[in-house]
Amino acid sequence: MLASIKDIEKGYFEYVKKIMDFEEAISLMAWDLRTGAPKKGAEQRSEVIGTLSGEVFQMSTSEEMKYYIDALTDPGVQNELSEKTRKSVAYSKREYDKNVKIPEREYKEYVILQAKTESLWEEAKEKADFNMLKPYLEKIVDFKRRFIEYWGCESQPYDKLLDLYEPGVTVSMIDKVFGELREQIVPLVQEIAGSRDRPETSFLFKRFSKEKQRAFSLHILREMGYDFDAGRLDETGHPFAISLNPGDVRVTNHYDENDFRTAVFGTIHEGGHALYEQHISKELIGTPLCSGTSMGIHESQSLFFENFVGRHHAFWEKHYDSLKQYADGQFDHVSLEDFYRAINISGPSLIRLEADELTYPLHIIVRYEIEKALFNDGLEVSELPEVWNGKYEEYLGLRPANDREGVLQDIHWSGGDFGYFPSYALGYLYAAQFKHSMLKDIPRFNELLKEGNIKPIREWLTTNIHQFGRMQKPIEILKDATGEELNAKYLVDYLSKKYRSVYELA
Amino acid sequence: MLASIKDIEKGYFEYVKKIMDFEEAISLMAWDLRTGAPKKGAEQRSEVIGTLSGEVFQMSTSEEMKYYIDALTDPGVQNELSEKTRKSVAYSKREYDKNVKIPEREYKEYVILQAKTESLWEEAKEKADFNMLKPYLEKIVDFKRRFIEYWGCESQPYDKLLDLYEPGVTVSMIDKVFGELREQIVPLVQEIAGSRDRPETSFLFKRFSKEKQRAFSLHILREMGYDFDAGRLDETGHPFAISLNPGDVRVTNHYDENDFRTAVFGTIHEGGHALYEQHISKELIGTPLCSGTSMGIHESQSLFFENFVGRHHAFWEKHYDSLKQYADGQFDHVSLEDFYRAINISGPSLIRLEADELTYPLHIIVRYEIEKALFNDGLEVSELPEVWNGKYEEYLGLRPANDREGVLQDIHWSGGDFGYFPSYALGYLYAAQFKHSMLKDIPRFNELLKEGNIKPIREWLTTNIHQFGRMQKPIEILKDATGEELNAKYLVDYLSKKYRSVYELA
Repeated sequence: MLASIKDIEKGYFEYVKKIMDFEEAISLMAWDLRTGAPKKGAEQRSEVIGTLSGEVFQMSTSEEMKYYIDALTDPGVQNELSEKTRKSVAYSKREYDKNVKIPEREYKEYVILQAKTESLWEEAKEKADFNMLKPYLEKIVDFKRRFIEYWGCESQPYDKLLDLYEPGVTVSMIDKVFGELREQIVPLVQEIAGSRDRPETSFLFKRFSKEKQRAFSLHILREMGYDFDAGRLDETGHPFAISLNPGDVRVTNHYDENDFRTAVFGTIHEGGHALYEQHISKELIGTPLCSGTSMGIHESQSLFFENFVGRHHAFWEKHYDSLKQYADGQFDHVSLEDFYRAINISGPSLIRLEADELTYPLHIIVRYEIEKALFNDGLEVSELPEVWNGKYEEYLGLRPANDREGVLQDIHWSGGDFGYFPSYALGYLYAAQFKHSMLKDIPRFNELLKEGNIKPIREWLTTNIHQFGRMQKPIEILKDATGEELNAKYLVDYLSKKYRSVYELA
Repeated sequence: MLASIKDIEKGYFEYVKKIMDFEEAISLMAWDLRTGAPKKGAEQRSEVIGTLSGEVFQMSTSEEMKYYIDALTDPGVQNELSEKTRKSVAYSKREYDKNVKIPEREYKEYVILQAKTESLWEEAKEKADFNMLKPYLEKIVDFKRRFIEYWGCESQPYDKLLDLYEPGVTVSMIDKVFGELREQIVPLVQEIAGSRDRPETSFLFKRFSKEKQRAFSLHILREMGYDFDAGRLDETGHPFAISLNPGDVRVTNHYDENDFRTAVFGTIHEGGHALYEQHISKELIGTPLCSGTSMGIHESQSLFFENFVGRHHAFWEKHYDSLKQYADGQFDHVSLEDFYRAINISGPSLIRLEADELTYPLHIIVRYEIEKALFNDGLEVSELPEVWNGKYEEYLGLRPANDREGVLQDIHWSGGDFGYFPSYALGYLYAAQFKHSMLKDIPRFNELLKEGNIKPIREWLTTNIHQFGRMQKPIEILKDATGEELNAKYLVDYLSKKYRSVYELA
């Protein structure tokens, strides 16, 4: 007797629920390792993560999974399936195809190389010695070029890598928006660099105790609408947000007692990620759709809160007094205006992680152009430092003195994460476009921030973005929420208007 | 081609390593749920635990496991196998036999009944209404009686239940030692109850802030030799210790700001459990032998530290000054002698969890005798309250006014945990016997406590007990460490000498 399509659908959902359960266990172990696991247990814990990850990989590429995918993508049964089923199966198929096409032996070699290169990167960066890393990075790039062929290369090989992080986004789309962004921002950055009107910032760097920063961070998360019955805040070296399930989305923070901005803007940023995951529809729990839809859309939510809310004048009209209360007097003689200008200071720099919101996209554009050249135009790994330095000089007016402050500064390439960087700037573009669209529905945006009433803003994001999880692709979400394709104009307008005002330029 | 025995052995260890990895993930999730997981994620987290537990059950009873067990218990190959392999396989076989003999359908019914009964117990206890619980408890007992038959009943059915928690220990062994204990302690308790020389205790119940109790708890754990690079201390409603692997053994604590004893003796108790798990030989990691060998031996380690160290006069000669420093003045005018007598006050009571070290064994003996009667002598569930109250009156001189302070006080029976209670008193007997034996090797025991030098004591326990994990059965450990069978004399001598001295009896 043949199984009915309803039975197959049921079997499929039980099967993916099991995979999702395994992934939740893996995520909790990762969270634990980063927040407070004792170091002597870490090696064995990593093996547990390896064991469970291996199971997930096997289930995702098993004969059983193939059976479900084949049966549930059959054109004859599509009208019997719900949208949730179709989209979930499409996602499973995408993962299946991606993983099953790479020969297992090669994939294992690659994973070992990846771990090796990441750990070497740390030493190479420390020593500012690119040559030390070069042979490994070359192998990583070779693997990636081969993987692209396995996946089925079309005209633009780099599109395959972009698609891993931002499904549906292509080189031709990014070229257009990043090009406009670069053309507009480079002269603005230069103009500001020439301005004599530098904000005073010394008061930012006074001692602000960790305990009080933590108390203020908790306060701000509450103000944002982060649900502490569905999450918690811990301390780590690098801040992050992690979703175990929509009822358990955790954030972490890092405290610098001589620069409160690390914790405050880190909290708001990770809080933005967490709000996304806390508000995904509960109906998607247990399916692969129960997650943010892409790196870029995720980043749009964190950057929306960090920049469009957290660096907004109106936000501090509400919260500056309370910041003063938590702090140890460092702002007592600083006006709101001076504070606002100080937290929005901008200037070219060499290190991406220390960049301000205006110059940040240029750091990403440098990396995007290099990645594209590597995979589309045959750029060689050995040429990376020279190309890197040239682009920094051209776009930011600064040339790295060595590779530590140049091409070696980020871990991403050593881990094989090519195609990832563009999401950071895409997220920023999305966020500006969402903001523009939100203003039509919520013209009182500034007043709401002044009143400390973030709820309607958060609800707009939930209605238009959060709830869908992976039910909508990034570009679909953008189009449904804003009525148009990706458009660099909104970010350019925002940056130009804001920084002309902060620096009182014409 | 037939697989060589070496290949089978290798396959077996890979297979059990996978099971142990799953169990580590499950334990971490359980720890997380109890320490700080946000409540809205708990339901889905329980499903993840269910999924992984189901996998462990399947692997432990699979055809593959049967293949390994059959091949590796073949008499013809025993001399080719290491001791570790033989003992590990013996443990796997024990678990396999236990699980595979119960029909799956019945086991599932039982698990559901268990959860239902445990949650009903809470309400029944609250209302002091035994009849509410009775029909469920009857079904639980029926299941257990049937399971004993599936496992293969010999002359004493209750032996099968004891064996679940304390392998190798039987009714005839326990009857002997519990009998002696009861005979000696009952008159001693009566004598003390009649003494006019009651210690003054009011100073124990002054406010001692949670933060300072936590700081003192950390201090004491460090003094005990608990390795914070292989563990951590958190706060929970009920304290516990949990081993994820020997490099990650966590303890928790509960703080009562009006009774510091909860946290201090709780810390020392759980610290004793943790020291055991931290010092199991690293060579056993990844095998089922990498765990404390039984409930009783585990309890011997926690009780050794709680009573033989933590309630010892010499221990407080060292630590009383530092306790005074952490506290908010509550001990400033209390002499060490008065403090020592107060923390060793004894008197009959109705609630096991509030009992002191002298009367505690009597609470256990009541439960043991009742369990034995249920499974060996046909006692009915409906008779439990009457039998319970009669025994309390006989042994402790107190009759519960209702079932909340009587037969309903513990959750164990509602969860089907018959055979578990005796381990508490067995652990105490083991601990006293270990202490007696340790004194031959470490005659300066008291001086070491006075000096705050616990290391030689902890090392003696590691050498004789901790390192073996499940490589040795409880009774083997006892015999190897003390040179004799279980003997109640040592605990009787200890209690009699100590309490005659505390109460200045003849």
